[in-house]
Amino acid sequence: MNIGLIGLGTVGTGVVKIIAKSAGLIKERSGVSLTLKTICETDLSRKRDVDLTAFRTTPDADDVLGDPEIDVVVELIGGYEPARAFVLGALKKGKHVVTANKALLARHGGEIHKAAAENGVQILYEAAVGACIPILRALKDSLVTENISSISGILNGTTNYILTKMTRENQSYEEALKKAQELGFAEADPTFDVEGKDAAHKLAIMASIATGSFVSDEEISTEGITGVTKDDIKKARESGKVIKLVASYKKTPGGRELSVRPTLLDEDHPLAGVQNELNAVFVVGDNVGEMMLYGKGAGQLPTASAVVADVVTIGRNRV
Amino acid sequence: MNIGLIGLGTVGTGVVKIIAKSAGLIKERSGVSLTLKTICETDLSRKRDVDLTAFRTTPDADDVLGDPEIDVVVELIGGYEPARAFVLGALKKGKHVVTANKALLARHGGEIHKAAAENGVQILYEAAVGACIPILRALKDSLVTENISSISGILNGTTNYILTKMTRENQSYEEALKKAQELGFAEADPTFDVEGKDAAHKLAIMASIATGSFVSDEEISTEGITGVTKDDIKKARESGKVIKLVASYKKTPGGRELSVRPTLLDEDHPLAGVQNELNAVFVVGDNVGEMMLYGKGAGQLPTASAVVADVVTIGRNRV
Repeated sequence: MNIGLIGLGTVGTGVVKIIAKSAGLIKERSGVSLTLKTICETDLSRKRDVDLTAFRTTPDADDVLGDPEIDVVVELIGGYEPARAFVLGALKKGKHVVTANKALLARHGGEIHKAAAENGVQILYEAAVGACIPILRALKDSLVTENISSISGILNGTTNYILTKMTRENQSYEEALKKAQELGFAEADPTFDVEGKDAAHKLAIMASIATGSFVSDEEISTEGITGVTKDDIKKARESGKVIKLVASYKKTPGGRELSVRPTLLDEDHPLAGVQNELNAVFVVGDNVGEMMLYGKGAGQLPTASAVVADVVTIGRNRV
Repeated sequence: MNIGLIGLGTVGTGVVKIIAKSAGLIKERSGVSLTLKTICETDLSRKRDVDLTAFRTTPDADDVLGDPEIDVVVELIGGYEPARAFVLGALKKGKHVVTANKALLARHGGEIHKAAAENGVQILYEAAVGACIPILRALKDSLVTENISSISGILNGTTNYILTKMTRENQSYEEALKKAQELGFAEADPTFDVEGKDAAHKLAIMASIATGSFVSDEEISTEGITGVTKDDIKKARESGKVIKLVASYKKTPGGRELSVRPTLLDEDHPLAGVQNELNAVFVVGDNVGEMMLYGKGAGQLPTASAVVADVVTIGRNRV
């Protein structure tokens, strides 16, 4: 499997590290040989803690997309454009694609899946939802038998960290956000996370798989945590509940309900115990009943691990 | 995909139900058409809540093993023999096998995997560990990149139910066992569960995948919960801990440590919150860090759901 990597940011660097460290182990376990052939990145001057001397590097994505030796394109630049053009370009050239780009999939997933199907190639994106938590694989493979009545997720580490600090240490939203920023769990501009948009992207991707048809994030009623007060948290606690930012898909008799909003959970609900920056997804199916997957929903290596595992899956399917 | 089902007990009946209910949904999602061609069962006189009129039924396993039209054999009779002979017989005839037989895999997994490899067919058994909890798929596919340092599981619903009752309702072991038996969470003869043997089988299967070589349950130091007293539970609680029956694999500098035993867990350990008959598996990998999968580890439909999903996976791989 010859891999072309587009985007050498945090996660892209993690992909390089994992392939360098674990290609032998992966080959032994799966029979799939991973070769990172070309890395496309416009800013190669930035310091990164990986050795790039073994790889061809280029600022031009066409050196990846136009290379007939590359089997899989790994897109890790994020955002809508030019990521969309690169992903569609790769699929149309008959290359498989692995991406962690939740914004792209939540908005253009329908078009992207259509292009993959038309060209007989695969598009995998486990890392886009909950990083290494294997929820998309579970929805597609393990739960293929299930009529899924609901999916509830704590899908954003920043907001879960803030709500945990507010709950456990009686901090205000502003205090907890500041602490999260100091520890690197929140961006300098946290808007995208605290307003629930990141969680909505992830929910759209899961709902698309559960329903078998594209669900856009624009359909999701989204409210973040900026309005949650110390008093709200206190009142919740007094009634035996905790407040979490829950992304929720529910199947209804007429169709579906999708929302991201601060939600009261009973203290003994499995999602209530998900603390700090951790993520979890709680699924209810007609045969399996209640199931939950829990783990690190962000970070360089947890995310890169899911990206590389998707590449291996494509390799296995090709054998 | 033509399926031959051997064993129409609780789980086998669940497989018939799920195929009857969901074959259309499965086809739509995966492209795989499931046809249950033949059911082999020695006691067909017993009442079951499924309609069998559409299927060929037989008391003779050779009607399944010798039928060239059958692609996948689903073995659900349990135990060592004749299950082992049927599984090996099917593999040697070039048929894929799906099974939920943990005892068989924990003792003869090496021989069975060898036969599958020699005959170029697949053997899948997600249902053998934690029923529908997708832990084997996670270990094989999602965690293919991971150097796994430990796996800790609450893998037996009977013992977890008993320990939960002892902890929450201050019951003695005997009282909690009686209650579990009344509710159907414990067998009339609970030896196999309460002595930790069932958990050891499941641990052996996970350790085999994590290490990439066969691990027998005979290697596992196993202690059950029959010696756990009300006083042990009380002392644990006083020090902020709970007692769970934990099945544990640890990678060590020299090799591995495997055990099943009553274990003190901090109250905020993710496994500590796993109550009643539920199961969970907690895995630590070098890139993903801590991850947990949680759900129903037993029961007709949760187990049958995993069996059918494995059949679909084989169908997808054949396409």
